[in-house]
Amino acid sequence: MNYSIIRWLVGWVLCVEAAFLLIPLVLCLGFGEPYAADYLIAIAIAGAPGAALAAKKPKNMAFYAREGFVATALSWIVLSLAGALPFFISGRIPRYVDALFEVVSGFTTTGASILAEVETMPRSLLFWRSFTHWLGGMGVLVFLLALLPMTGGQSILIMRAESPGPSVGKLVPRLQRTAVYLYGIYLGMTLLEVAALLAGGLDLFSAFCVSFGTAGTGGFGILNDSFASYTPYIQVVVTVFMFAFGVNFNFYFFLLIKKFRSAFSMEEVRGYLAIFLAAVVLVTVNLTVQGGAGFGYALLHAAFQCSSIMTTTGFSSVDFDLWPTFSKTVLICLMFVGACAGSTGGGVKVSRILMYFKNIGRELKRLIHPRSVTVARMDGKPLDTDMVASVNMWLLAYIAVFFFSILLVSIDGFDFTTNFSAVAATLNNIGPGLNLVGPTRNFGDYSVFSKFVLMFDMLAGRLEIFPMLLLLRPATWRK
Amino acid sequence: MNYSIIRWLVGWVLCVEAAFLLIPLVLCLGFGEPYAADYLIAIAIAGAPGAALAAKKPKNMAFYAREGFVATALSWIVLSLAGALPFFISGRIPRYVDALFEVVSGFTTTGASILAEVETMPRSLLFWRSFTHWLGGMGVLVFLLALLPMTGGQSILIMRAESPGPSVGKLVPRLQRTAVYLYGIYLGMTLLEVAALLAGGLDLFSAFCVSFGTAGTGGFGILNDSFASYTPYIQVVVTVFMFAFGVNFNFYFFLLIKKFRSAFSMEEVRGYLAIFLAAVVLVTVNLTVQGGAGFGYALLHAAFQCSSIMTTTGFSSVDFDLWPTFSKTVLICLMFVGACAGSTGGGVKVSRILMYFKNIGRELKRLIHPRSVTVARMDGKPLDTDMVASVNMWLLAYIAVFFFSILLVSIDGFDFTTNFSAVAATLNNIGPGLNLVGPTRNFGDYSVFSKFVLMFDMLAGRLEIFPMLLLLRPATWRK
Repeated sequence: MNYSIIRWLVGWVLCVEAAFLLIPLVLCLGFGEPYAADYLIAIAIAGAPGAALAAKKPKNMAFYAREGFVATALSWIVLSLAGALPFFISGRIPRYVDALFEVVSGFTTTGASILAEVETMPRSLLFWRSFTHWLGGMGVLVFLLALLPMTGGQSILIMRAESPGPSVGKLVPRLQRTAVYLYGIYLGMTLLEVAALLAGGLDLFSAFCVSFGTAGTGGFGILNDSFASYTPYIQVVVTVFMFAFGVNFNFYFFLLIKKFRSAFSMEEVRGYLAIFLAAVVLVTVNLTVQGGAGFGYALLHAAFQCSSIMTTTGFSSVDFDLWPTFSKTVLICLMFVGACAGSTGGGVKVSRILMYFKNIGRELKRLIHPRSVTVARMDGKPLDTDMVASVNMWLLAYIAVFFFSILLVSIDGFDFTTNFSAVAATLNNIGPGLNLVGPTRNFGDYSVFSKFVLMFDMLAGRLEIFPMLLLLRPATWRK
Repeated sequence: MNYSIIRWLVGWVLCVEAAFLLIPLVLCLGFGEPYAADYLIAIAIAGAPGAALAAKKPKNMAFYAREGFVATALSWIVLSLAGALPFFISGRIPRYVDALFEVVSGFTTTGASILAEVETMPRSLLFWRSFTHWLGGMGVLVFLLALLPMTGGQSILIMRAESPGPSVGKLVPRLQRTAVYLYGIYLGMTLLEVAALLAGGLDLFSAFCVSFGTAGTGGFGILNDSFASYTPYIQVVVTVFMFAFGVNFNFYFFLLIKKFRSAFSMEEVRGYLAIFLAAVVLVTVNLTVQGGAGFGYALLHAAFQCSSIMTTTGFSSVDFDLWPTFSKTVLICLMFVGACAGSTGGGVKVSRILMYFKNIGRELKRLIHPRSVTVARMDGKPLDTDMVASVNMWLLAYIAVFFFSILLVSIDGFDFTTNFSAVAATLNNIGPGLNLVGPTRNFGDYSVFSKFVLMFDMLAGRLEIFPMLLLLRPATWRK
């Protein structure tokens, strides 16, 4: 293993984080909050070793799959360890493990919180909390790739390890330009949402925090009741933007370069829209028939909640834990489906779900006509066996992590629905679950051990399982 | 499709069932119960069309995969439709859908009941109820194969469609002899259990009913509290036999032909034992530490309950729904693991679980050394890609059925744990779940629609998903 390149990348990640910490520092000074020294300490703790590690460019830039996975997983862990410092040093989250949980939840765009009360938090800290979503959504290493001129085609491996979904490709031949494009689209859409929210009467600070939470499909809000007290206009704007950030970014790239036909024929995007619409219809009907809600109310909140859960954002406009079981079960199914690959959302991803169903269909055909050769296709191209195998392997690993996690957190003795939905909500990077971790509750009651299990799940969910599993495998570290 | 051979097989299944219905008829007369006429009507309704369908042997005995799946699925449906008649005609289960649920649950060896009260049931009906477990455990078509001389090597396809597990092979070159051997071992072990139970003071009737429920890993008991009021001796005997019937029958065949090394080196059997022991240790420790139970009590019931749930039998010696969450979660994990392939148990099966973990390990290796060729092995033989693919496809179909079922039964409005465990308990052919379908409750409160969903799940679980899915696929029925 080429340790020096991993050292170098982790160092750069720390430097970037230290630089980003200047933003809440400036806000802190602007708002007149008494935490400037705390931010400076945090910046020093992140920046000094970061600069030391990144100072010397490694001679050997050789970079293989192993380095890609390890560098990515370690970067995310280090990013979280340092990102938790402002909360801890300022004393606003007294226990470091809780601060770490909050920041892992932020960077992984989960949005699961240990805080019962956020409105009394200093605004600069709330900004940093929401900003972690934004940075984590598109990825800190993708950001680095946009900055650093890395020679050699192998740095695509970092992008593959960090970006969600089974098939990460370059938009344009040069990787650095791809990263720049992705961040460009991402920034543009975020600013568009800020503008739409400002038009609805939100102040600039709130508009940015909400937009960060939406863009990263994160879910941290700045009000205790999440989105329940915002106006319907704001709720609709956020519904639309949550959905939009769950779309495969290739779609927007196609739009940008005016390949409209390519954009609108993307099977994943069409499947994503179809599943979303079906879920909204089912929940709306169920809320009006079984839940006794009015149609307008039902439609608004069904759309908001389906968009929020399917994109794995996790904002809540109502306490959906009080909904009829059928609606809750639809939401649980959406939790697993997740958003598109190549978006900022989590979950299994629509493209994988489509492949699974195509494969079941193909298998049914094959069982009846064992000698016929049938090929499943995606976007007109045949799915090669390697891709199918790797998508299946991912599912196996996902299920294994899922069951082991439920078993481990069940030691705390909470009920099964709580544990099941807590793991589902963290591994899929959603945020709130049901019962004791429902939308009006938080993860604070879990033990330290369970919090570490759930932090592992959040990172495993964001980095698509394998980088985190590889960290645990001794053979990974052998020369 | 060769409809005439399907007709012929379904006819034979009905004839066999009519013949087996003579046993409870004789018992009914012996016990002096007033249901003799009802049995005769049931025998006539099953036997007459059965004899008509089976009378003419089809000219064309051509038999392919499609015929195998359809014949198996239809046979099991017809078997259940007729098997429910004694309960319905006698009026002891007033609604036909409930009688059908009970008998589907019986034949599929699930053991989920809609009866709150079984002790007042006539004994001949209790016998028939338990006997359905025994017949369903090894399979009615395997029984037919032992009887009928079917020419052509293709009848292995029936056995593949009906027998649990990914790799069904013949024990001996001739299929008919294989079926005879399987039923011979099965009958021998059942009689052994009867003897062990008689030695513990059980009467002959109870000993047979309990043994049928154990042998088929079914779970119907003849007491309202299942196994709570039996003596520890009986509980231990049943624990041992439940475990034994969950072992791959190839193991016993190897013992019979004195290939001891082959028997004891079977990876699946070793894995099955290891998982069972690990679960018993975890539950015992948890019950003593968190549950406050004494060690002897904890060990006895941990062993009983782990054996019962892992083999998907579903007997209960205590109300495990009152256990600490960790123990319940261990049981839920065992629900999915299931017993060995080639046993009478259900669930995912240990051999599949082993393959999944081997494949995850291989994938982790492959990710780090993309060019290395690593092969997963089972019992020393490399797992070929076709086998891995088909085992993965099975999992995809299983998950799809699982989620759709939870969604459909959630319309009834019960809580998520109830619905989740109801589907887990039926699709894995276990019986009791948690909460409203826990060991001291029953499935009677679900709506007719949900009961049909759960019946489909029981059949899908017993027949390994695909035969039932193929029935729903229009293309299956095309010429």
